[in-house]
Amino acid sequence: MFARMVLTKPYLLFLGDARDQLAAKTAQGIVDWRPEWCVGQLRLPNCKADCGLPDLSIQEAVARGAKTMVVGVANAGGVLPEHWVTTIVEALAAGLDVATGLHKRLADLPAIAAAAQRHGRTLHDVRFSTLALPTGKGSKRAGQRLLTVGTDCSCGKKYTALALEKGLRAAGVKADFCATGQTGVLIAERGLAIDAVVADFISGAVEHIAKANDADHWDVIEGQGSLFHPSFAGVTLGLLHGAQPDLFVVCHEPTRTAMRGVLHPLPTIQQVIDLTLQLGRLTNPAIQCLGIALNTEALDHAAAADLLAKTGRNHGLPCVDPIRTGVAPLVEALLHRFPGGRPVGG
Amino acid sequence: MFARMVLTKPYLLFLGDARDQLAAKTAQGIVDWRPEWCVGQLRLPNCKADCGLPDLSIQEAVARGAKTMVVGVANAGGVLPEHWVTTIVEALAAGLDVATGLHKRLADLPAIAAAAQRHGRTLHDVRFSTLALPTGKGSKRAGQRLLTVGTDCSCGKKYTALALEKGLRAAGVKADFCATGQTGVLIAERGLAIDAVVADFISGAVEHIAKANDADHWDVIEGQGSLFHPSFAGVTLGLLHGAQPDLFVVCHEPTRTAMRGVLHPLPTIQQVIDLTLQLGRLTNPAIQCLGIALNTEALDHAAAADLLAKTGRNHGLPCVDPIRTGVAPLVEALLHRFPGGRPVGG
Repeated sequence: MFARMVLTKPYLLFLGDARDQLAAKTAQGIVDWRPEWCVGQLRLPNCKADCGLPDLSIQEAVARGAKTMVVGVANAGGVLPEHWVTTIVEALAAGLDVATGLHKRLADLPAIAAAAQRHGRTLHDVRFSTLALPTGKGSKRAGQRLLTVGTDCSCGKKYTALALEKGLRAAGVKADFCATGQTGVLIAERGLAIDAVVADFISGAVEHIAKANDADHWDVIEGQGSLFHPSFAGVTLGLLHGAQPDLFVVCHEPTRTAMRGVLHPLPTIQQVIDLTLQLGRLTNPAIQCLGIALNTEALDHAAAADLLAKTGRNHGLPCVDPIRTGVAPLVEALLHRFPGGRPVGG
Repeated sequence: MFARMVLTKPYLLFLGDARDQLAAKTAQGIVDWRPEWCVGQLRLPNCKADCGLPDLSIQEAVARGAKTMVVGVANAGGVLPEHWVTTIVEALAAGLDVATGLHKRLADLPAIAAAAQRHGRTLHDVRFSTLALPTGKGSKRAGQRLLTVGTDCSCGKKYTALALEKGLRAAGVKADFCATGQTGVLIAERGLAIDAVVADFISGAVEHIAKANDADHWDVIEGQGSLFHPSFAGVTLGLLHGAQPDLFVVCHEPTRTAMRGVLHPLPTIQQVIDLTLQLGRLTNPAIQCLGIALNTEALDHAAAADLLAKTGRNHGLPCVDPIRTGVAPLVEALLHRFPGGRPVGG
């Protein structure tokens, strides 16, 4: 847990040799929400991602004032490939701090630990927490909570939650984004990477980062994985139980055919709604689905508009693309169900 | 992961000030399955547990040949209370190694680390693994698997799995117990405490300890927690997905009214069967319920016999108490569905 997890700015974003744009979602998240923190990107040969920043060498980044190199690539398993070590050591030698959100600790790699010490630089392992967490209790606590869930990994749960925090605040509702992944923690500079917590404490960790609060306060909790993802459903379920959400929003990427990293087909939006309601009732019997957020980036404008309208109609729920249309319909629907953001009868 | 996790024997079992018999389930598991390894038990004032071994002081245990003191108390959160430190330091000073299955590492407590070094003793943190685990893949692998699941924590999942290993082997079926908790690891001297794994790797860890095997080989995998337990359901689901069981047995303690450590009521056996089938199909569409194992320790013989018969009849499944009746009906039912232990059509 990072009460505050603050890095020295601005950043050079390291994209490594990301195998596709999604693999660089940590870098993209920082660019989307904190562009003012980023001076450029560093890409290795064969990098398939591009975050639209100037391509800089380490020396060029230093010349433009960069203070920290953030490893902006997330891969299944959170491994740090051997061939990135050279670049990281070079960045440390050039005077940059280095931050990652991988499962491997930077300081566990002797070459990196030695370089950091030699050059007096700081290593940040954003995914790690030293906090002694309690196990989850499952008892209903005060305050309102909204969780983003998904048909898969990497389909817009973090972006939707951040957009909802912004939209709710603009509507005068007390709302706080609760980061549960390394990118969210890098953007919010607080929160906890829930997938790096020891398994016994998943729901307890969420109870800890989204504590009891004012009756009309909304924690907007970033979801992780999918209840239908064979690698990560355990994390998703523990997160659902710990979040005990009053509302959830289903995030979906409509052009994807298989779940990320495995051979399993995507579930339907309706399957995710049904299973989230069924399993979420364990810690909040009043759980409801608020709406749907599609990531229509791969569609043209007409196809996207058509799909958003059709999906909303089919489910009888507001359906938005947080990037293309914004989340106003979700904020309106929340205020319709909870006038003034207050609990029903509260 | 401990390819082999071998402690020096025999053991003095430390029960601390266990708040009830269940809190000492690690010690009880060792006494049940490896009595020949135990010379006695050490209990602090107010200890509510008794494993039926001679009560010994550390000096008396050493005189009887004890080589390792095993902390046999499991508490929610796996914390090591401050006031146990004195006893552990005393044991190290008297020449014993010390082993625990708690979430807190012994060596992280300076007084214990110093005493171990001073006296040249070894500290064993059975719950920890240094293995680099992969994330789960969810693809069906060769070999047969049976998982014990439960209506709650601490209701007989480990005991049932160990009894099934023994029963299957006696029937000529190739079978191996796969430990997933600290007690199981202490008994089997291999396996992995799944609740101490980093959350992203729960299902991957189970895929690792119950690897692809001969088509007629059965891994009998120890279950953890309950899909209905608000603290631990995430672990249970990841374990179910990684185990991809062909068969499961539901374990239940019929006199319990609330789930262990929380205020939630127990689910019914039927609810556990239904949800395990529903969620287990993600990684094994052919999953079936084999039968039920009741822990009838709190009932008299007539009441137990009556309940076992009634529960079996109501569910149309074999129903046993592994301690009172043995697991022969479950082994027979397995051989009926899978003649010779072989996969159907295999």
